[in-house]
Amino acid sequence: MRIEDIETPAVLIDLDLVEANIARAQTILDQLGKGFRPHIKTHKIPYLARLQMKAGAIGIACQKISEAEVFAADGFDDILLCFNLLSPAKIARARVLAEAGILSTVADNAETIAALAKGMAGSAVPLRVLVECDTGMGRCGVQSPQQALELARLVAGSAGLVFGGLMTYPKPDAETQVEAFLSAARDLIVAELGSCPVISSGGTPSMAQAALAPSITEYRAGTYIYNDRSLVERGACQITDCALTVLATVVSRPTPDRAVLDAGSKTLSSDLFGLQGYGMILEHPEASITALSEEHGNVTLHGASPRPKVGDKVRVVPNHSCVVSNLTDRVVFHRSGEVLRHEDVAARGCVV
Amino acid sequence: MRIEDIETPAVLIDLDLVEANIARAQTILDQLGKGFRPHIKTHKIPYLARLQMKAGAIGIACQKISEAEVFAADGFDDILLCFNLLSPAKIARARVLAEAGILSTVADNAETIAALAKGMAGSAVPLRVLVECDTGMGRCGVQSPQQALELARLVAGSAGLVFGGLMTYPKPDAETQVEAFLSAARDLIVAELGSCPVISSGGTPSMAQAALAPSITEYRAGTYIYNDRSLVERGACQITDCALTVLATVVSRPTPDRAVLDAGSKTLSSDLFGLQGYGMILEHPEASITALSEEHGNVTLHGASPRPKVGDKVRVVPNHSCVVSNLTDRVVFHRSGEVLRHEDVAARGCVV
Repeated sequence: MRIEDIETPAVLIDLDLVEANIARAQTILDQLGKGFRPHIKTHKIPYLARLQMKAGAIGIACQKISEAEVFAADGFDDILLCFNLLSPAKIARARVLAEAGILSTVADNAETIAALAKGMAGSAVPLRVLVECDTGMGRCGVQSPQQALELARLVAGSAGLVFGGLMTYPKPDAETQVEAFLSAARDLIVAELGSCPVISSGGTPSMAQAALAPSITEYRAGTYIYNDRSLVERGACQITDCALTVLATVVSRPTPDRAVLDAGSKTLSSDLFGLQGYGMILEHPEASITALSEEHGNVTLHGASPRPKVGDKVRVVPNHSCVVSNLTDRVVFHRSGEVLRHEDVAARGCVV
Repeated sequence: MRIEDIETPAVLIDLDLVEANIARAQTILDQLGKGFRPHIKTHKIPYLARLQMKAGAIGIACQKISEAEVFAADGFDDILLCFNLLSPAKIARARVLAEAGILSTVADNAETIAALAKGMAGSAVPLRVLVECDTGMGRCGVQSPQQALELARLVAGSAGLVFGGLMTYPKPDAETQVEAFLSAARDLIVAELGSCPVISSGGTPSMAQAALAPSITEYRAGTYIYNDRSLVERGACQITDCALTVLATVVSRPTPDRAVLDAGSKTLSSDLFGLQGYGMILEHPEASITALSEEHGNVTLHGASPRPKVGDKVRVVPNHSCVVSNLTDRVVFHRSGEVLRHEDVAARGCVV
């Protein structure tokens, strides 16, 4: 069966490109001498995480306890959960995985550390906690190396917890700033606590620049496995490296300059990432996906090249591949357009 | 159990507000003497569609054959599928429902009509097809009343199909233009074919102006059942009419002016609808949700009112409630914050 024969819209995964993307990234991190911990948020599929592990990854990263449970059930035994846990119910679930020796997590505030310590009270196996640092991204994280030390001290002094190191989700192209923060925090912590075992940074766009942050010991990245239009626009990859595409049908041609696809925001998502348009049509790179409804993709046709007809199938490289994974129950694995199988997106919708 | 006790993020549905929104909209359409056909895309939940039917709806509208199948299996017997069907597989599924006498659909091009006729060949029960008209929205639809006549003629001349009338998804605040198109198309069609049974328009923002399009016989709307921030901003409802909210926890307070929620684009979606920010926090209306990652909502705090603490739960009115429904496997029904039950979003993810 060929991908052209699949009902649309459908999310296609080119396994040849996936394997090439995994190998390329692992080689970069191997050459830098950093551990590589792929983030499963991009694919949410255990089969693909196993390919990442076979290539040399040291473990995986995830964002939610429900994601960690999906991968733990599939045998993954080194999972970093990069999100502050607060509720007793979530921490009780984390404790199960921590006591199996497979989960570590992060904290950027004293309330999270107190909640984790309370939830781990009396456990024979402590939960490893990394302190999250805001090294410039402006999302979560302590604001200074001194604050990182204070939280590291709090973790180290909490029964049921063990200090695991530092974690940051860095601003791209700010490696000097990231390195200054992390190395200063590490030095303060080592001076007082004796060690700072792990320093974890991440992000696909900065992967090649990770060498500029010598203090980091391991690196997390997710999107690199599929890539997407936003990474092409940033120069982080080529359009031919994009392993995830959305197969769509031209369902209407109301005017000479307008085509409508059967893929809208329920398939492509509304993520713009600062770009113009909602994706790139491989067969019509000059066309623009100018507006999305939930089920309609409005395409403005430019130029003199052959225009799509009603019934034509096209492939769209989305702006952001991770959110496309989260919108589809299953994806289609193929090689050179030959369908291998449908695969469930096992951790789709895991928001809790 | 109170909604405050639910794990976050969670999608909450206030049934008191749902019932009030259903009653208000049905009254508007009843007073106009138009049939009301709620669009299930907003809630995707048979229980809520039954409330809409009990209030006086004549049937339901949906966008995909997979959605129609979910509702047909639940006993709904008058479903308008507002999307061009093209593939033999989808049309074979539509035929099952058409032969049960419960499905009608639309077409805006000759290829769709030919595909429908081919798929219905030999059927004892014809498929009712409405011609979709682009009366100003610039999405699908024929571009002129003359084109509408041509397609109506094509439908009427196709074995297995029966001409059902006209359908449009109108541009808001353009009722004069919509009416001019529809009445002209109707007159052309009646003159040639003898009748134009149904003229279906729709859209929540224009509901109160539907009276300005006297030619329409029935009206489709979806979002009115929940409402959302985009409708508040358009003046179509009050914030107190918004039945769908996202319960989220403040998981980080990295700086005095920044809070981070555990609801990101995987829960709220990236839909901006031309607004600033990704939703309104009911407890902190002066705050702005300025950026979303997949699992993080970055909130910028303004003003002098009490600022949220780590662990606080807040409720967010999203920009667009329909896409929030599509991102969650289940919702929580409540009245005045008292939890009634969890309800599956039965038609979530139905894109094919």
